[in-house]
Order: sequence, then C-alpha cells, then structure tokens
Amino acid sequence: MSTDAPHADDLRTEAASLDEQHEATDLRARFLLPDGVVYLDGNSLGALPRAVPAAVRDAVEQQWGRDLITSWNLHGWWDAPARVGDALGRIVGAAPGQVVVGDSTSVRLHQVLHAAATLRPDRTVVLADPATFPTDLYMLDGAARQLGWTIEHVSPSDAAARLGGTDDVVAVVYSHVDYRTGVLWDLPAVTRAAHDAGALAIWDLCHSAGAVPVELDAHGVDLAVGCGYKYLNGSPGAPAFIYVATEHQAAFTNVIPGWHGHAQPFEMSGDYRPAAGIDRARIGTPPMLSLLALEAALTAFDGVEITEVRARSLSLTAFLRRCIDELVPGTTYASPDDDASRGSQVAVRHPDAYGVVQALIARGVIGDFRTPDIVRLGVAAPYLTHADMLTAAVHLADVLTSDEHLDPAYTRRSAVT
Amino acid sequence: MSTDAPHADDLRTEAASLDEQHEATDLRARFLLPDGVVYLDGNSLGALPRAVPAAVRDAVEQQWGRDLITSWNLHGWWDAPARVGDALGRIVGAAPGQVVVGDSTSVRLHQVLHAAATLRPDRTVVLADPATFPTDLYMLDGAARQLGWTIEHVSPSDAAARLGGTDDVVAVVYSHVDYRTGVLWDLPAVTRAAHDAGALAIWDLCHSAGAVPVELDAHGVDLAVGCGYKYLNGSPGAPAFIYVATEHQAAFTNVIPGWHGHAQPFEMSGDYRPAAGIDRARIGTPPMLSLLALEAALTAFDGVEITEVRARSLSLTAFLRRCIDELVPGTTYASPDDDASRGSQVAVRHPDAYGVVQALIARGVIGDFRTPDIVRLGVAAPYLTHADMLTAAVHLADVLTSDEHLDPAYTRRSAVT
Repeated sequence: MSTDAPHADDLRTEAASLDEQHEATDLRARFLLPDGVVYLDGNSLGALPRAVPAAVRDAVEQQWGRDLITSWNLHGWWDAPARVGDALGRIVGAAPGQVVVGDSTSVRLHQVLHAAATLRPDRTVVLADPATFPTDLYMLDGAARQLGWTIEHVSPSDAAARLGGTDDVVAVVYSHVDYRTGVLWDLPAVTRAAHDAGALAIWDLCHSAGAVPVELDAHGVDLAVGCGYKYLNGSPGAPAFIYVATEHQAAFTNVIPGWHGHAQPFEMSGDYRPAAGIDRARIGTPPMLSLLALEAALTAFDGVEITEVRARSLSLTAFLRRCIDELVPGTTYASPDDDASRGSQVAVRHPDAYGVVQALIARGVIGDFRTPDIVRLGVAAPYLTHADMLTAAVHLADVLTSDEHLDPAYTRRSAVT
Repeated sequence: MSTDAPHADDLRTEAASLDEQHEATDLRARFLLPDGVVYLDGNSLGALPRAVPAAVRDAVEQQWGRDLITSWNLHGWWDAPARVGDALGRIVGAAPGQVVVGDSTSVRLHQVLHAAATLRPDRTVVLADPATFPTDLYMLDGAARQLGWTIEHVSPSDAAARLGGTDDVVAVVYSHVDYRTGVLWDLPAVTRAAHDAGALAIWDLCHSAGAVPVELDAHGVDLAVGCGYKYLNGSPGAPAFIYVATEHQAAFTNVIPGWHGHAQPFEMSGDYRPAAGIDRARIGTPPMLSLLALEAALTAFDGVEITEVRARSLSLTAFLRRCIDELVPGTTYASPDDDASRGSQVAVRHPDAYGVVQALIARGVIGDFRTPDIVRLGVAAPYLTHADMLTAAVHLADVLTSDEHLDPAYTRRSAVT
C-alpha cells in the first residue's frame, strides 16, 4: 500500500504537526460522523451536528406533540425565520435584521431577481456567469422572460471590464464560489464595479456561507441568497436564506407575497401590506422541523469566527493538494492553487472522474462527481483534519494505481446534489 | 358544573353510543396527544402521528448522520416529492403521477396561477372568493399585476351565474372549504361551470385534504394546491403539494424552474428542459426532515378511506353542534348545519370570540380565534371522539355562564395560524 511509501510517512508526520497547530479550531466533537469515513461532501450535504438530534426530538415530541398550536408563540416558531436569519447573518457578516430563512435557494433567487427589477426599473441587462450552478441560470432565464431582460454571460473575472462606463446593467448575479472548480470570486471588487456602474450586486452564497468570510455588510452587497444544508450543516434540504441590505428593504417588493410577509398577518386582511424590515421577504409557513434543525446546527459555529474557519480550511485544502501532488504526481486541478482565489474544496480533473469518485466512496472517502471530469473534494473545515486530507490522498493514489476506478461496478450515476 | 345538568347526562350516554357505532374509525391510537386536552385546532396544525418520531429520528440519525449524501439514492430522497405526492394523491382522489410535494402553499399558488396563464393565454379574468384565505388573495393580486389579469371577487356560490355564456375567464381559484366558516363549496358543480365556460378550475385544498373527499380526478379538476400540516398532520409547516392533472402536464410551465424540475438534473446543463410528468412542478431541494415527517404522517390514513373519515367527521361535527345547542341555547354559527355544505369544523359566532377561545384553551379545549367574531372548532375526525365533542361543549357552556371569557388575562393576541 502506498501508505507505506516514504512520502506518506513524511506527510503523516506533517499532518500530525499541522493538526496540533490547528487544534483550537478542530470542532469534530461538535459533529456526529460515522467511524471510518472521510467526508468530503460537506459542500453538498453538511454532516450532522451533535446538537441537532435532541433539538429535532424536542421540536417533534414536546413542541409539536405536546404544545401543539401554542408553540407558534410558546416556542417562538413565528419569529424563527428572522431569529435564525440573524444567527446565520453573523456567519456571513450581516448585522441583525437583514437575513430571513425559509424556502429553497431557487425560490429565493426568484425573489431577489424580481426585487432587483423594481430597484432598477429602467435597466434591462443582467450579468451572469455561464459556469454558475444551473438553478441560477434557470431562474435568470425565467425572470428575463418575465421582465424583458437580456442575460449576458460574463465571467466574474470580466465583470469590471463589462461594467465600466455603462449604465444598462440591472445587476450582476454571481456565485461567490464556483460549485465545480471551487474558485472564490472577488466579491468586494465585483461589488464595487457593479456599484460604480449603478448596478446591484447579487450574490449566491451556497458554496461560501459557513466556509469563507463573506462580509455582506462591509462590502455593501445589495441582495444575496444561500442554502442552509452545505457548509451550514442545517439538514438535507434545510431552508435557504435571503439577505436584503437595510437600505433596500423599504423598496423591496416580494414577488411571492405570502401572508407570513404581511405587516399584520392575523388581521387576515384581503389586502397585502408588506411587513417592515426583512420580514417582508417571508412567504408562507416555513418547514419548522427543518428550520429548527438548521437553528441547532448553527450552534456548531458558536464561539468561532468565520475567519478562523477559513484559516483552518486554507491549511486543509493546501495540504490536501500537496498530499495529492506527492502521492499522485501529474494530477491536474480545476481548483486554484493560490489561497486568495480558492474556496473550501479541491477539485481534481480526471477523465474517469465518475469511477474515481465511486471507488473512493467504496473506501470510505466520500466526495462527489461533477460533470464532465471533476472529482470534487469538499473540505468542511470544522469537522476535518489534516490527517483526513492525507487519508483521502492515499486512497486516491491507491485507487488510481490499482485501476479500481475502471471497475464496471462503478457505473451507476448517483443522484447526489 | 353544567356537566351535572340533565342535558349533559343524556348527551354523555349518546356520545358513548355514537363512539361505539364509530369505533372502526377511531384512529386515536395512531396519534400522540397530551392527556387532558381536546384538540380542536387540527385544521391549523394537525396532531402528532405516532409513526412520526421514529421516522424523523431515523431520517436524522441514520439517513443523514450515518449515510450522509448517499441517502439521496439509498433512502430515496430524490424521489420523495413524487412518492409522497402519490401517497397524498390517494387521499385527495388523484391517480399516481399528478401530485408532487414541496414548498409552501403560497409558492404553489404562485406556480399554478402562472401556469394557468400559459394554459389560457387569451383570457384575462380570474374569479376569486373575497372571503378566501388571505394568502390566496395576495398571490392572485400579485399574479394579476404580472400577467395583466383582472381579479373579480365572486363567491363560489355565484360562480356558475358569472361564468354562464362567457369566454373571458382564465380560471376560478377557490378554497374547497372556507377557513373561517367551514363552508364546503360544491367543487364538482363549480368545476363543471368553469369547464362549460372554457375556464380552468383551480382549488385550494388546505382545509379539505384529509378531511373530506375531494376526488380531483373524478371531477376533472385542472390544478390544485394544499398544505401538509393541517388535516394531513405532516408537522408544523410541512411541505405543501401541487396537483397538475395529467392532461395539463405537457403544457405546464413552471414559473420557478429550479433544477429539481429539470429533465436531467445531474447533467448540470445551462438550459432548462422540464422533466416529463409531475416532476416538472418541482423547484429546489425540498426540506427532507419535514417531507419525511409528512410521509410518515400519511400512514395514519393507512387502511382507511377518506369517505370513512368523512362519515366520522360529519357525525362528530353534527354532534358537537347539537351539544352546543343543548348546553348553550341561542348560539349562532358561521358554519352550516346541513351535512352537504359543512366541512370538518364548527364555527361559533360570539362578540367576545377571542376571550372565549383563550378561556377554552386554559381549560384544555384548544380551538382558535378567527377575526372578527369566530370561535373556530376544527374537528380532525381520526383522533377525536363524540365524548370529546361533549367535553368541548360543556367547557364552552361553563366559560360563558361564568364569564371566564371576560377575564382580562385573555387579552394577548396569539399567533396561531
């Protein structure tokens, strides 16, 4: 086994040393992970935080089962979307009162796009990254048809050049981190360039919230969305979130004006009057079990700054890449080498990427495949160690040297997200 | 205490006799309800089915915690929206492949309204009941602004007269049961009248699914929505559902075209191609814990036909009304007396309705207040008995004869839904 190779021995020593250096941010004890697994798919579905099972059990058996309808007041269900939004806001650099939780990322995108149209009614062009996650493109195309917009496919790296000196752009709508390559785009610079052109900056934080500093307020982001179930570990399909900067809230129009966003929902008035503040972005009754799971999950970040999570993540991803370079020489990557532009994943390119991922999963190293040729290794720093990174690289080397990835057993396409 | 009055004695004997007659449909053992409570708010939040806690625990600890991302295949998460939709379809009379679960009722309304516009592009009038649940009106007004529609406020009882001989109506959008008065509208007749005028029949089943026969297929309903957390007991804020009749699926346009509705979601294509069948109504990643809670909850209806639930419900609501008439003579009702037009609730009118509801809750009889003057007593037949109905009426009589409802303690407005 390549674990016995000299490279691996040196790397094992180094992993131990790095794990000691980063001991203060090892939050593995806050999560329940199966033994024998290196979980590198936390950017698809986060691991189970230790606080969640008891919280969900309480929500089911005591809050719902015993206290029934009174829980809307007694256990603060009504206020949960904004309360959890505030907790989540701390992680993405949003002061209280600007984030609300509920619905899916797709629905939240639908909302922010239509809101953008009312904030910039005289403009018609939206810039989008053609490599962004498909749902973003689908929502953009759908909104464009409804609103008479033109979608221009411009990479975030070219946004400033496109925006300079123009006044036709409604908004840039970008993912902070590319879901395939793991590229971390320059949110501050792109946001500034958008603002210089009078455009809005709308960011999809699905692959950055909980992994890298976002600092929405500090950078003056206008609108943002993100999901609760990746680096935030909020449970499968946990509610998404929407950020509406305070300055835009008074003019924020909710294209799905459900009664939970009403100023006086229990008046049961036939006329919609939007609530003040971020509550106007609420829609219908949120899925409380999933929402309360997310609330409990966020406590895994208690007492930790996102900058500390980021420092750990950068050390882990750099080390993972170095281990792969040592053990699988000649590997090519979709993810960047430099810290400044790398999100919290390492994306290996391989012509048989699908088989490689399946063979790794069979060995307990769970990453995922992204079409056409990417072995995506997500690194959720709170529950991973440098030793885990080495283990993953050792198994990758073993798979490739033994041609396990060509085994016909690894052909069925998985439905991981 | 009025429990000792001769009326109550006779009624107690009758309750016991009725409960014996209806023993076969007493499903109380399938639910976990606190002792000493008569729960008459199952039309706001259903009670906890006994099957749910273990199902949710398994979803959290084994599926999510242990099997992690592989659960999308291993535990059928990806197919759950349509699978649970089919199970729910049995309860509302929809053959498999026409119901999908996820998102909130408000979002589902937004979808069906925009889909209706594409199915009837040359028409501009929509009929709506001004007394319907507010979110329906808000969604209608929002869609009307986007689509250039005119909303005409016409009661379902007047729909046929308005529709006759006209060809301008896109759709009627009605609640099957009025959330306040409990009136059960004549879905078959209104649907026929809509079809005779070339209009679509769109029904909101929030207050009928799980309580009364709906028979969507048999009556040729075009589109429908409903929530999972009232008579279906799917957990607080459980996902809603959408019904798209098979004949409309090929032309169904999803205004929120999230990637879960894509024909090949894992191609990660930049172009949206809708899935075949009901899957095209899916949007984003559903909240799995809430969705799996709903799936387990629906097993409370196993082996029971909705017609049997309805027969029990009619007996219960008729008996409740008779108990109230006996013990609180002169009571006036918002809910109908005749079986054919009464949903699964008894709605008492009282000028101090808010205080009455609070006083009843303090006595363990949990109903809810609906503005301006309604004491709403929802009767979820599976877990209630005729003895419960009498208990509720006795407490109502006691509250009113002792003026408990005027106690200043009962002034804070609750946030029950």
